[in-house]
Amino acid sequence: MKPYVEMTKEELNEELKKLEARYKKYQAESMHLDMSRGKPCQEQLDLSMAMMDVLKPSSDLTCDDGTDCRNYGQLTGIEEARVLLGDMMENNPKDIIIYGNSSLNVMFDTISRAWTHGVMGNTPWCRQKEVKFLCPVPGYDRHFSITEYFGIKMIPVPMTPSGPDMDIVEKAVESDESIKGIWCVPKYSNPQGISYSDETVRRFARLRPAAKDFRIFWDNAYGMHHLYDDRQDHIIEILAECKRAGNPDLVYKFASTSKITFPGSGIAALATSPNNMVDFVTNLKIQTLGHDKVNQLRHTRFFGDIHGMVEHMRKHADIIRPKFEMVEHILEQNLGSLDVGTWTNPLGGYFIMFDSLPGCAKDIVARAKKAGVILTPAGSTWPYKKDINDSNIRIAPTFPSMKELEKAMEVFTVCVRISSIKKILKDQKD
Amino acid sequence: MKPYVEMTKEELNEELKKLEARYKKYQAESMHLDMSRGKPCQEQLDLSMAMMDVLKPSSDLTCDDGTDCRNYGQLTGIEEARVLLGDMMENNPKDIIIYGNSSLNVMFDTISRAWTHGVMGNTPWCRQKEVKFLCPVPGYDRHFSITEYFGIKMIPVPMTPSGPDMDIVEKAVESDESIKGIWCVPKYSNPQGISYSDETVRRFARLRPAAKDFRIFWDNAYGMHHLYDDRQDHIIEILAECKRAGNPDLVYKFASTSKITFPGSGIAALATSPNNMVDFVTNLKIQTLGHDKVNQLRHTRFFGDIHGMVEHMRKHADIIRPKFEMVEHILEQNLGSLDVGTWTNPLGGYFIMFDSLPGCAKDIVARAKKAGVILTPAGSTWPYKKDINDSNIRIAPTFPSMKELEKAMEVFTVCVRISSIKKILKDQKD
Repeated sequence: MKPYVEMTKEELNEELKKLEARYKKYQAESMHLDMSRGKPCQEQLDLSMAMMDVLKPSSDLTCDDGTDCRNYGQLTGIEEARVLLGDMMENNPKDIIIYGNSSLNVMFDTISRAWTHGVMGNTPWCRQKEVKFLCPVPGYDRHFSITEYFGIKMIPVPMTPSGPDMDIVEKAVESDESIKGIWCVPKYSNPQGISYSDETVRRFARLRPAAKDFRIFWDNAYGMHHLYDDRQDHIIEILAECKRAGNPDLVYKFASTSKITFPGSGIAALATSPNNMVDFVTNLKIQTLGHDKVNQLRHTRFFGDIHGMVEHMRKHADIIRPKFEMVEHILEQNLGSLDVGTWTNPLGGYFIMFDSLPGCAKDIVARAKKAGVILTPAGSTWPYKKDINDSNIRIAPTFPSMKELEKAMEVFTVCVRISSIKKILKDQKD
Repeated sequence: MKPYVEMTKEELNEELKKLEARYKKYQAESMHLDMSRGKPCQEQLDLSMAMMDVLKPSSDLTCDDGTDCRNYGQLTGIEEARVLLGDMMENNPKDIIIYGNSSLNVMFDTISRAWTHGVMGNTPWCRQKEVKFLCPVPGYDRHFSITEYFGIKMIPVPMTPSGPDMDIVEKAVESDESIKGIWCVPKYSNPQGISYSDETVRRFARLRPAAKDFRIFWDNAYGMHHLYDDRQDHIIEILAECKRAGNPDLVYKFASTSKITFPGSGIAALATSPNNMVDFVTNLKIQTLGHDKVNQLRHTRFFGDIHGMVEHMRKHADIIRPKFEMVEHILEQNLGSLDVGTWTNPLGGYFIMFDSLPGCAKDIVARAKKAGVILTPAGSTWPYKKDINDSNIRIAPTFPSMKELEKAMEVFTVCVRISSIKKILKDQKD
């Protein structure tokens, strides 16, 4: 089929009629397929069930340094967990704090602490006239929710295929003292699934922020989440690069095992410089006596070491790779020649990003919903949920079964085509 | 032996000489006995080891409402856990939020949220001129650390055998709009081990605070921690009493299973009114996707129901009751007739409170330390660590073995006697 824009009005109306008939048929099936969030599917969760009896009633829950993991203590986490997550994050165990079950919570708390107590002795953000964050767009909605919640002004920065537009980032960060942070998902980004280039990471590490309390919020959520054995993205380790660049305190790096073992029952971690570490621990020791060490021990004994985790991630990939490939296949097959959108073909992570014709995303998502396919609300990938182009849609292929996913993508592409034709017809009329 | 104050100078010096000889002998033993914190001992931790295989690799981790506990979701906790902790806290499950592993963390976050966003739509505390908290003294050092961390001015309120002096509480709360909260450990209080009388609870529920954003921080940490079957304290349930008094939103009530299962690996909970609940959830949904549901399920399946937990607490009591009794016995035997201090004989909780002669507590704790017995630092039970009488010492009998505890208490009482004699001799000289 030729591109829609090259079709005559009659051809488009003919096509629309056929598509609407198909759409009605889908509606009649009363489906309910939820593709709104990046959730592992049941088969993925089953991979970690062996963790349930790693610790037994007869087990010794003493960790290597003699700490009884069942009692209070070890604020920064047990050594074994710092080693494992250090290996996972490519950081030194001594630069790691192990937290509870949610890295999002750690990010929230980090912003909250900057708000109430300031960053490393600087004026608390709540006492500063204005606080701004750079937000690479499209990006992760829950990052934006945190900054919005604290009344931090969010400034969108366009993403390129190699990461945020660094010309814009450098200019803003180096000239504006009220810019205190930037949200980054550097590897298999949410929602694009792209990874920052070496040059991007190097330029990040060499930022000379106007604000002394500026920090890069480096959410390395998908560091281990490759889809392929033979084609994998690699990014430069940011802490080491910052140190080499004479900027050791520039970065807070976050990660967790949420999508490695169980979402909500994994362990989260922060990696940062010794100076930042002191800042974190000073706060943390007021906030809690420590995180769940039994769960830390359960994780380290389950994986053994990083090789165990790498093997485990291969099993995840085997389950979700066909889903990504099916989404890409159906997009290509149903939309490939029509010039009604573009999408990414990531090598890892949890999402595929789709960009429709401008002004169509909300309509597509609403249309899909009426046919029983729930997508992440259009606009979610932008600060304040306002996608200025109304074109960006995040596709989360992992949770549904292959059969459901196939159906959902058929519905989705029909919705894209209907919206696109309507848009083109309207543009021709105007 | 007669009271020290009735002894002559010569008698006192003679006694001192004997005691110092004993003290030197203790020092020579190079002990290291840590009684500084309220930590369960190993036998107590062993009681919960059966929890390790409540969930098995073959288990279905679906909870009653169909939620897969392994995946994201259920921000306020799984229904089973809300029922169990509801029964434990004597509250309706719908008034409960289940949190992570630390109720202290929930208290910290609650203050932090009030600081950044205010209580139920009121001006954030960070934008108010002054924020004060009432602190019943002696009290729990970690409560005071949180308020101090936020720069909240702490006003000590004397404890009586029936709870905080309510005349002072009422007058302060009802006249001063900058007073925003009060820390309470209403049952088997830290450090006294006393419980609030019915009248105290009723007066709390009937407070008419000058500040609309005043809340009672009701830390019911030891609700289940009876030492005896036949002698138990009971307190009026505060949420229900507040509701009856037309003050439904006055209280935040905290609890956890930290000293029921494992410190650091238990589950924490908040109970509060529907209005407050909305306030909490609005914040919480920005902060996290939810807490550890697998651990919630593990706890509920381990206990079955509240009766299982009550039985479990009996086993704890059997282990620690002899420790409390030994402490009380040695205090009575070694200090009973000397008039050099008073102490509590609690029916539950984790502590015995000792009050020395004024001006002796720091000296006693330092002296014990030099003989290898680590006590909670003197002053810790007061805001800013300043005990105006320098008399209060918290004794934590649970962690050491019976043998260690006996030794530690012998050392402690010798230290008390030496300090007291020195104090009396000095007073006589002045």
